[in-house]
Amino acid sequence: MLSPERILERCESLAQHSELPGGLTRVFLSPQARAATDKVLGWMREAGMQAKLDAIGNAAGRYEGNRPGLPCLMLGSHLDTVRDAGKYDGMLGVLSAIECVHALNAAQERLPFAIEVIGFGDEEGVRFGTTLLGSRAVAGIFDMAVLKAKDSLGKTMSDALREFGLDPARIPAIARKKGDVLAYAELHIEQGPVLEAQGLPVGVVTAINGFSRLRVTLRGAAGHAGTVPMNLRRDALAGAAECALAVERVATSHPELVGTVGRFEVKPGAINVIPGEVMFTVDVRAPQDSLREDAVARVRSEIDNVCRTRKLTQEIENLQDFGVTACAPRLIEQMERAVAGRGFRVRRLPSGAGHDGMALGAIAEICMLFVRCKRGISHSPLESITREDADAGVKVLFEFIRSFS
Amino acid sequence: MLSPERILERCESLAQHSELPGGLTRVFLSPQARAATDKVLGWMREAGMQAKLDAIGNAAGRYEGNRPGLPCLMLGSHLDTVRDAGKYDGMLGVLSAIECVHALNAAQERLPFAIEVIGFGDEEGVRFGTTLLGSRAVAGIFDMAVLKAKDSLGKTMSDALREFGLDPARIPAIARKKGDVLAYAELHIEQGPVLEAQGLPVGVVTAINGFSRLRVTLRGAAGHAGTVPMNLRRDALAGAAECALAVERVATSHPELVGTVGRFEVKPGAINVIPGEVMFTVDVRAPQDSLREDAVARVRSEIDNVCRTRKLTQEIENLQDFGVTACAPRLIEQMERAVAGRGFRVRRLPSGAGHDGMALGAIAEICMLFVRCKRGISHSPLESITREDADAGVKVLFEFIRSFS
Repeated sequence: MLSPERILERCESLAQHSELPGGLTRVFLSPQARAATDKVLGWMREAGMQAKLDAIGNAAGRYEGNRPGLPCLMLGSHLDTVRDAGKYDGMLGVLSAIECVHALNAAQERLPFAIEVIGFGDEEGVRFGTTLLGSRAVAGIFDMAVLKAKDSLGKTMSDALREFGLDPARIPAIARKKGDVLAYAELHIEQGPVLEAQGLPVGVVTAINGFSRLRVTLRGAAGHAGTVPMNLRRDALAGAAECALAVERVATSHPELVGTVGRFEVKPGAINVIPGEVMFTVDVRAPQDSLREDAVARVRSEIDNVCRTRKLTQEIENLQDFGVTACAPRLIEQMERAVAGRGFRVRRLPSGAGHDGMALGAIAEICMLFVRCKRGISHSPLESITREDADAGVKVLFEFIRSFS
Repeated sequence: MLSPERILERCESLAQHSELPGGLTRVFLSPQARAATDKVLGWMREAGMQAKLDAIGNAAGRYEGNRPGLPCLMLGSHLDTVRDAGKYDGMLGVLSAIECVHALNAAQERLPFAIEVIGFGDEEGVRFGTTLLGSRAVAGIFDMAVLKAKDSLGKTMSDALREFGLDPARIPAIARKKGDVLAYAELHIEQGPVLEAQGLPVGVVTAINGFSRLRVTLRGAAGHAGTVPMNLRRDALAGAAECALAVERVATSHPELVGTVGRFEVKPGAINVIPGEVMFTVDVRAPQDSLREDAVARVRSEIDNVCRTRKLTQEIENLQDFGVTACAPRLIEQMERAVAGRGFRVRRLPSGAGHDGMALGAIAEICMLFVRCKRGISHSPLESITREDADAGVKVLFEFIRSFS
């Protein structure tokens, strides 16, 4: 009784919880996140699970195996979104997993292991600039120092957790131990163009590319746009523009590298004032750790050169470094058998995007199933999947779960 | 009885009305602007003037001449500020003018012309991206179409005026006719380093440089920072960075040109999303109109090139073009006599910054007196003047007023 219609209806239903009128933006610990999470907890309970909000704000559900207290197969994805997001990135995986449990429960089927489904509260890292907060907490690699991180309004993560009704001191207690989680499996939209190009509804992920993230602040001297001659300026924006182009140049130097400047915030930001300060972010990803590390070093060196030439000061915060996370060969094989079992051609592919499995890898073997999305578009309101592909995805996941060993 | 202490105390007092905690930001039609304007209206009345808020939100005071209804010498400057501003840019001119009227009134002295002092509600253009709104209205060159302009929260100027308690339909009625205003004279801090380098407290302005302002929006395609290969990207930020460097390059090509990108706003602006859209502003100034016009044409052509190469679309709004505004030779001479009369060496200099006189030039001859500021710094909390220079400025202005003919 797997229903792709129900999955897609629920994607639409969650998309109503947005701070962006007419679009979808739902960040960690926001009132919109609270409403969406409560909805998901309700659906988990309808599917026969015990479900609760955990200390980091994840929606966590558990469906017991053929006796209580067994170790679990963990399924999940995230419920937060980027700004002006699509409706499927994250949510599709959570809702497909709940749908599978719903079908097991409807058939009164219990497996020789428990199933846990988690809708992670933060994967994207939009609000506090540091990602995978929900899955890190579950994996026991949550850095309590990030509780002091502030959002753009200056609110700390600690305060935001407390306003959400949570106690930051309880975060360490939700960490799972290695033996408790047999494996972590996640269904997610591809967010890239490979499956569409191959004419395939689903694909099996081999590894998640590593990434490094920097927050760079350049400071020069603000001044009047009409009175300071060009040769006396220390324009932070012109310097940051050179750095952004350097990131692009470094990333273009190898076909498997990507590099992005996604935020770029100017102070004071007035039409007639020379910018005195610019904060920008750098996101570098690669399928080999050494390639990524080398690229980051080159970006840093280019920033040094720009600042020296322009007499700017720099401050570089290393927000995050994640090495490549490989999917477990035995799980890849099991997922491939599920794909083939449902009559689809098997295709392996790497993930250019980061996923919660990067954190869960600390306590369990992981695997992922990708579902085709239209034109590879994601992190955009144009994100789109078909009913048929949602159906293929949930059926393969269901087969994987029932055959899991 | 001219008191530079009172002028400086009042600068401090107005600086308390700020939306920026610990700093000074006071934009057009804000609650802070209302409080500051009300204070100024009170000081005008204390100085013996009839004073009222006009339909565009200016503080307008009138001190009759030796009979009622005479044409006026208009004095003034602005009460709005840039973001994170200094305390003297604008305010010093308004408060020095009020101080002069205060001294005339205390001595029960009436002149063969009226004096009007106006604290203009908008000169900087921070809120709606278009400047000189207060002085344009008084000069009868206010473009009613800009009432539809929106601030960063999407509020139109019309609505902001109404919330301030004003009726936009009454704006045309505050326009002065040519014969009503004998001349416009403004005292202002130099905002540049010339007077300090010459060791002079004041200088006489010859002309106000012209400026052109563009608002440029580049659109590419938002996308996931991890999954879209570099060669398939249409990154609006990388394109805008090239354009910002092109503005700098064009402006550096002539010693009298300046060019500034002061705002730069990225959508969606998330660390892990390729920017799909960037809005940035361009401000170009020059002491010759042809030099400025040529520079703007070159900037537009560079933007064309960037967009063609990167497959971006562009939208360029011409926010403002102001030709060079010359000060009237007869007023320059009268101001020079006042400077010499107070025992200071006479120095002429052009204004790199724009001023309300650019608008008032439409109905009257104009002149300006510059007061030295520390290290030429303006549009910054570091803006600073001395008590002695405030004293020199107000004394010269007073002498100018009393000898005006």
